[in-house]
Amino acid sequence: MADPWQECMDYCIDVTKEARKMICEALQRDKSIVEKSSPVDLVTETDQKVEELIISSIKKKYPTHSFIGEESVAAGAPSILTDDPTWIIDPIDGTTNFVHRFPFVSVSIGFTVNKQIEFGIVYSCLEDKMYTARKGKGAFCNGVPIKVSEQQDITKSLVLTEIGFKKDPENFRTMISNMGSILSIPVHGIRAPGSAAVNMCLVASGAADAYYHIGIHCWDMAGGAAIVREAGGVIMDITGEEFDLMSRRLITASSRSIAECIAKKIKPFPCGRDDAEN
Amino acid sequence: MADPWQECMDYCIDVTKEARKMICEALQRDKSIVEKSSPVDLVTETDQKVEELIISSIKKKYPTHSFIGEESVAAGAPSILTDDPTWIIDPIDGTTNFVHRFPFVSVSIGFTVNKQIEFGIVYSCLEDKMYTARKGKGAFCNGVPIKVSEQQDITKSLVLTEIGFKKDPENFRTMISNMGSILSIPVHGIRAPGSAAVNMCLVASGAADAYYHIGIHCWDMAGGAAIVREAGGVIMDITGEEFDLMSRRLITASSRSIAECIAKKIKPFPCGRDDAEN
Repeated sequence: MADPWQECMDYCIDVTKEARKMICEALQRDKSIVEKSSPVDLVTETDQKVEELIISSIKKKYPTHSFIGEESVAAGAPSILTDDPTWIIDPIDGTTNFVHRFPFVSVSIGFTVNKQIEFGIVYSCLEDKMYTARKGKGAFCNGVPIKVSEQQDITKSLVLTEIGFKKDPENFRTMISNMGSILSIPVHGIRAPGSAAVNMCLVASGAADAYYHIGIHCWDMAGGAAIVREAGGVIMDITGEEFDLMSRRLITASSRSIAECIAKKIKPFPCGRDDAEN
Repeated sequence: MADPWQECMDYCIDVTKEARKMICEALQRDKSIVEKSSPVDLVTETDQKVEELIISSIKKKYPTHSFIGEESVAAGAPSILTDDPTWIIDPIDGTTNFVHRFPFVSVSIGFTVNKQIEFGIVYSCLEDKMYTARKGKGAFCNGVPIKVSEQQDITKSLVLTEIGFKKDPENFRTMISNMGSILSIPVHGIRAPGSAAVNMCLVASGAADAYYHIGIHCWDMAGGAAIVREAGGVIMDITGEEFDLMSRRLITASSRSIAECIAKKIKPFPCGRDDAEN
């Protein structure tokens, strides 16, 4: 039997290319930024336009499918993962980077059926690197197979995370002290590139050994999760328990031993769930 | 009168291209790492070979000039800036990135006469971006003029820094708490790309608004300092005083107001000087 979702993936690749084109064109034009609630919470015109392009293109071909998109959710759409074929979309992952033209800006799309991720696409626009993975068929960057580093030793690892301001002082202190705990292991270093989806692809391609993040969203992770798994990486919750796409928490690493070591070192703080009732 | 140092700069560009070629070839081969004193203090075969290539090429043409190179200094050569024409070289800026193949790895060369920086070249190898600047003649990326962002408002800025383990617990705490202070202003975000020279070029090209670092070396800064100044940026000591190339401390920003704001927020910790007697 033919793979029922391969056609969706092929179509997704085309749509992602169109989205990337729109992003690159916008980067050529002047900045035009609408601030949402705080300086760290930026949304751009382009963000909304790119999501509209992606969703309308896919709806035309797959009218019965469901969608969870960052901008749609911000506008009030539900963010509940069902068993339906579901496209989980971050039109611009790394919005702050986009605003500043910092080089990591990506389109991220993951596709789930029965709540399982079937494929993922992450297009790092300025690097011009398209990462793709179909469940059971490996992960690729611009068509070339990629795999995670074979690192098992946390003290030889390069770790990615996100460093942002948190309004809750207690959560902010925990975030900062988690970073201190990881550095003190010690590790080779911490890097913060500012795009969750790209971070996952950097782990998938062996350029970093781990990435952890509390407060991430399902649309930041769905595409990258397929890629890092197919590249041989592990994904888990920050407690070391099973990964939950809607939990807003992630550790991904080149090996279980590194992921578990990070899980032991960092302390969780409340970040809500993507599928919480409002 | 012809510019006496333009010829040196043209020659430097050729040498830097050769150095980049050597680095890219090494990245194709397997990792072969010699650890110096700790996991965060890595030196690679390539680091030494690239510095040898650069210094021997330049010595052939300019036998009377002086050199300060990261690897030579590590091997015991003096690190004293004199009035002589002096080439200040980091063969691989971002050695940890190099080891992991994390995408920011650069060759950095600055050239001083009478202790003033005359030109700088930073070649971000994997991005294939060559940044160049001759004093009074502007800054360029791959030949295209660049300039800093026109940002004056720290709360709208993207800030770069380095996040590394420090053996001294007090210094480590200060480094971590400085990061917390900057985030709490708040700023748009902190990014840590892991190559000091590339960080300076990201500020020079407007992709970030500021970069601060305590514990940086003169060979990390000399090339980038020329580039960021010629792109319209400011450089100062972390105290807000005049920039000192040998001080191991740096704030660079798109504007004086942002640099001064950072200087007020961060606390120094002892990091020695590059020209200290051993």
